Amino acid sequence: MNAFKPVRFVDVALEGNFWRERLETVLTRTIPSQHVQLGKHGILESLTLPNPAPPLRYPRNEHDFTVQVFWDSDVGKWIEAASYALSHRRDADIESKIEKITDDLEKAQAPDGYLNCWYLQREPDKRWTNLRDNHELYNLGHLLEGGIAYFIATGRRRLLGILERYVEHVRQTFGPDPGQKRGYCGHQEIELALIKLYRLTGERKHLDLAAYFINERGRQPHYFDHEADARGESPRGFWAKSYEYNQSHRPVREQTKVVGHAVRAMYMFSAMADLAAELNDDSLKRACEVLWDDVMASKIYITSGLGPAAANEGFTEDYDLPNDTAYAETCASVALIFWAQRMLHLDLDGRYADVMEQALFNGALTGLSRDGEHYFYSNPLESDGRHSRWTWHTCPCCTMNSSRLVASVGGYFVSASEDTVAFHLYGGIATTVHLSGNKVFLRETSTYPWSGSIRIEVDPEAPAAFTVKLRIPGWAQGAAASVNGESVDVKSGTKAGYLSVRRSWRKGDRIALELPMPPERIYAHPSVKEDLGRVALKRGPLIYCVEEVDNPGGCVQQLELSREARVDIEERSDIFDGVVILTAAAQRAEGEDWGKSLYRNTPPSVTVCKLTALPYYLWSNRAKGSMQVWICERDQPRASE
Amino acid sequence: MNAFKPVRFVDVALEGNFWRERLETVLTRTIPSQHVQLGKHGILESLTLPNPAPPLRYPRNEHDFTVQVFWDSDVGKWIEAASYALSHRRDADIESKIEKITDDLEKAQAPDGYLNCWYLQREPDKRWTNLRDNHELYNLGHLLEGGIAYFIATGRRRLLGILERYVEHVRQTFGPDPGQKRGYCGHQEIELALIKLYRLTGERKHLDLAAYFINERGRQPHYFDHEADARGESPRGFWAKSYEYNQSHRPVREQTKVVGHAVRAMYMFSAMADLAAELNDDSLKRACEVLWDDVMASKIYITSGLGPAAANEGFTEDYDLPNDTAYAETCASVALIFWAQRMLHLDLDGRYADVMEQALFNGALTGLSRDGEHYFYSNPLESDGRHSRWTWHTCPCCTMNSSRLVASVGGYFVSASEDTVAFHLYGGIATTVHLSGNKVFLRETSTYPWSGSIRIEVDPEAPAAFTVKLRIPGWAQGAAASVNGESVDVKSGTKAGYLSVRRSWRKGDRIALELPMPPERIYAHPSVKEDLGRVALKRGPLIYCVEEVDNPGGCVQQLELSREARVDIEERSDIFDGVVILTAAAQRAEGEDWGKSLYRNTPPSVTVCKLTALPYYLWSNRAKGSMQVWICERDQPRASE
Repeated sequence: MNAFKPVRFVDVALEGNFWRERLETVLTRTIPSQHVQLGKHGILESLTLPNPAPPLRYPRNEHDFTVQVFWDSDVGKWIEAASYALSHRRDADIESKIEKITDDLEKAQAPDGYLNCWYLQREPDKRWTNLRDNHELYNLGHLLEGGIAYFIATGRRRLLGILERYVEHVRQTFGPDPGQKRGYCGHQEIELALIKLYRLTGERKHLDLAAYFINERGRQPHYFDHEADARGESPRGFWAKSYEYNQSHRPVREQTKVVGHAVRAMYMFSAMADLAAELNDDSLKRACEVLWDDVMASKIYITSGLGPAAANEGFTEDYDLPNDTAYAETCASVALIFWAQRMLHLDLDGRYADVMEQALFNGALTGLSRDGEHYFYSNPLESDGRHSRWTWHTCPCCTMNSSRLVASVGGYFVSASEDTVAFHLYGGIATTVHLSGNKVFLRETSTYPWSGSIRIEVDPEAPAAFTVKLRIPGWAQGAAASVNGESVDVKSGTKAGYLSVRRSWRKGDRIALELPMPPERIYAHPSVKEDLGRVALKRGPLIYCVEEVDNPGGCVQQLELSREARVDIEERSDIFDGVVILTAAAQRAEGEDWGKSLYRNTPPSVTVCKLTALPYYLWSNRAKGSMQVWICERDQPRASE
Repeated sequence: MNAFKPVRFVDVALEGNFWRERLETVLTRTIPSQHVQLGKHGILESLTLPNPAPPLRYPRNEHDFTVQVFWDSDVGKWIEAASYALSHRRDADIESKIEKITDDLEKAQAPDGYLNCWYLQREPDKRWTNLRDNHELYNLGHLLEGGIAYFIATGRRRLLGILERYVEHVRQTFGPDPGQKRGYCGHQEIELALIKLYRLTGERKHLDLAAYFINERGRQPHYFDHEADARGESPRGFWAKSYEYNQSHRPVREQTKVVGHAVRAMYMFSAMADLAAELNDDSLKRACEVLWDDVMASKIYITSGLGPAAANEGFTEDYDLPNDTAYAETCASVALIFWAQRMLHLDLDGRYADVMEQALFNGALTGLSRDGEHYFYSNPLESDGRHSRWTWHTCPCCTMNSSRLVASVGGYFVSASEDTVAFHLYGGIATTVHLSGNKVFLRETSTYPWSGSIRIEVDPEAPAAFTVKLRIPGWAQGAAASVNGESVDVKSGTKAGYLSVRRSWRKGDRIALELPMPPERIYAHPSVKEDLGRVALKRGPLIYCVEEVDNPGGCVQQLELSREARVDIEERSDIFDGVVILTAAAQRAEGEDWGKSLYRNTPPSVTVCKLTALPYYLWSNRAKGSMQVWICERDQPRASE
């Protein structure tokens, strides 16, 4: 099964309206505007060394560091996103901007290869003294991902070369040998980047260094203890109190519960899954599976948001999933997509693709506004109207995670092995793959996620036998398929979420797949106390929410949907570029007859109203107002009292 | 109406079991153990000056001050509570402890009368440089209340004399005259204490100083701006961002919305109501009424908790009343009792007494454990089991607010004017008042709040005409009363919550009052989004909650009560010293058949169960576990699915 590899996004043309719109917005608005913001906030300037005594523009936060220590990573992520954009179409202006950054980094780099602008500028003698908090390797990881993407898009190797020299310095600095530091980064990320570098260059040493960082993590004596001692600090003074925060509380293979900072966890699990695949390491694969099950059983929002708590930007207790205070950082949902894609390629099990899709539509996409220039950092499932999108954030990690994901989203649609092509996502793409030595042109046409009617053209250059696998999402009950009009038995042909059609294919063969998309009511496990007595609306892969702009008359929390009410589909061309909304007859608790007291001994009266629900990822794009995903459900319509 | 004065607690014997138990617990356990805690935490030692370079035991908090600046006030509040105890019965040991504190304060006092141990010890040249944050006048206020109480209990004037010298220093320091600082305290409290001192001594200057502090507050140019400038700080650097935090954003008579720190607000409103009474100031009375209505219409929890937010320990938006994160500091409910009592004595309007009683039983009492040695600082209305009582707090303000309230609770029961006695609270008391020149012995006998059957003996020395007013609580529908067996028309005789019985009374006259106490369902205004679809149970003045220890089988949030289910009363002698609990047939959402996924498209199945509700003030006295006040309400029993 390991033979499945994703078809690279550069080889997948996005033809459907849904993704074309998102991609165009990111290319034309998000990426350019992000460069403006990086300039405006001093982030680009921070690379220009030496830079006489630059003042701290941002105060140290309550944990005694400033967001500025992360800035190299923001630049790296922007280069990565911008380079993905260049892979779609070259742009001299963008390229000159990346060249300028490259110039700055080249000048800043120390003779030994070290290249962290924060330390070089402020505390050059303190490099590598606080891996726990200060993100040096994390920053390198993101710069490296940027350098790789830029090289792939343009063939220019100068930036990548700079970063390879830095990697070489890191390789000499860290490891188990005498004279080396046995450290690893407090924020996982370098591991993923090193694996990418290995895949690009074929140089095994990069894979080995990634494996070292993963294997070393959580060993005793604990490196972060040692490092704190060396700084003259008590290890117990760690602000987060526990190394669960950065998943170094025990070796990774012994971790069975998902804990701590959500983005750190997802990046680490992604690297573990990569290593499991590259090294054929069953113990890492098994660890990933246990952790996956833990997240899915008790820790994921229905929107795929991860990490309920702001305090640690991460996980708390099982079933602790508050809606209005949900942190659910956009970055964590993006990183869940990375992890899910890697898990999927270990086994080609559709349950991973289901989560990947769910995180894409409901977790990650939500973080980027319709206009491509506003963002969510945290993604609550309920708001009283005070939560809305911002134009920038002092910690802008989520902004570039959104843009780099959308700019490369084509890479999540299709995978191929020697003789099999697998469709994971739908929505209108075209690609050419090689199957059984044959060039096969594939075009998938649909208006997914608005409709589950999918058509696939399979056009091999010459007739050949191979397998086409079609993902049948877990939510798709009663899916039907046919080839050239001839029905395929979906039930018997589907294993682990994929319908396999093996036959001798020839030019002009046509697959039709019908994924029924009735509106669904979804209920949460009763241990999620915030969702008791509540229902969420879903259709296909999309989670819906009620937003005040569509449901005037007060805060949407006052809406009640009765258990038996029919939920209808309505195609609305007037909202955005056309969406499918859900509507139902509902009622609203009224305060008008209430008088001046807060409490009384009769329940609120209700008025009949129409409930309108919009896909969650689109909320907060029109007007400020209340929003909620989990709607109060009544057993029956309540007579007005 | 101003003629009504509370009968002092020293003149009210608590005879009923309910209050005797609380009082005994406070006298025998709480007050002695609080002295132990004050010693253990360095608070008593902090008075011993000079004290060579004492280290900070407590770190500076995120707002850059330590709780230690409040410590004088904690000592003052303990002296006040302990002195109230001495008024019940003298105790040489307690008195020697207060004498020791008096010795320390005497030695610490500066020649000019200044007496703040924090400043004298650490920054003697910085006194009065930060009234906004550093609580000097607040500390004096609590010490002064302690000194007054100790003088009343023992006749010893040494402590009071020390504090009067300090007050004299304050009077010279603050005021509108040239050379004086036009300041006032960031945390209101001194005003209340000065009014008490005025009432004790009759010296008008104390009332005037209190009035100065209240009238000066919020004037422009703003004193806290001026003071920050003088410290070389930007006034805009104030951590709380707005002077709403300490209610100095505008002059007090122009305040119409209740904002900021809840305890500060309540102490200020109490002082305003006192001044309104003493100075016959209608503009202050009107301001109090407007602010009262604002709290009652949109800002008070059903438990009388005030201030939903931890960030400012105070108020936020209208109707923002989250249950699980409710801050609802115990001190704020205690202070609401102060305010309500003062408002009540302006007009003798029962709506104030209703709130006073509600705050007493459900807000303030909750803060003190059954054993008298554990506390709540914040009082959420829902818990997943992580919230429980603590033995002490780094900021122990609430502990002594509980003990001083209970030790003087008799003072809230009865008031008298020239020819009228008014009963506000019930529960078994005896007192003697002078009415129309006649000594009248009164005994009220009941098991209130467990029963609303109340008997009152009215025994004047000689027959005389006077009025007995009996509070008919707002919740008491269908109250009935009789005198010597002869029915009184409650409906026509009741105005503003009080039934007036005027007649010629003679020894042996007996009143019977029946306040029906059926279990009630209470609903919140539908703008309180957290309470939508939920019901609270109440009986008489008591709010009930469901606690896991009485409702085994999982977290209590899973309980559902159907709209039509009968709620029954059960007398339970086995819980504490006997309580009345409420029970009902209910159902519980079950997770057992749920499998490993968090979400599914059928609702949880339910099992039938018995719901048991306990008075809220008693929760967290037996075992850790979940708790909730607002129970999910179903329209009808739901068949198991």
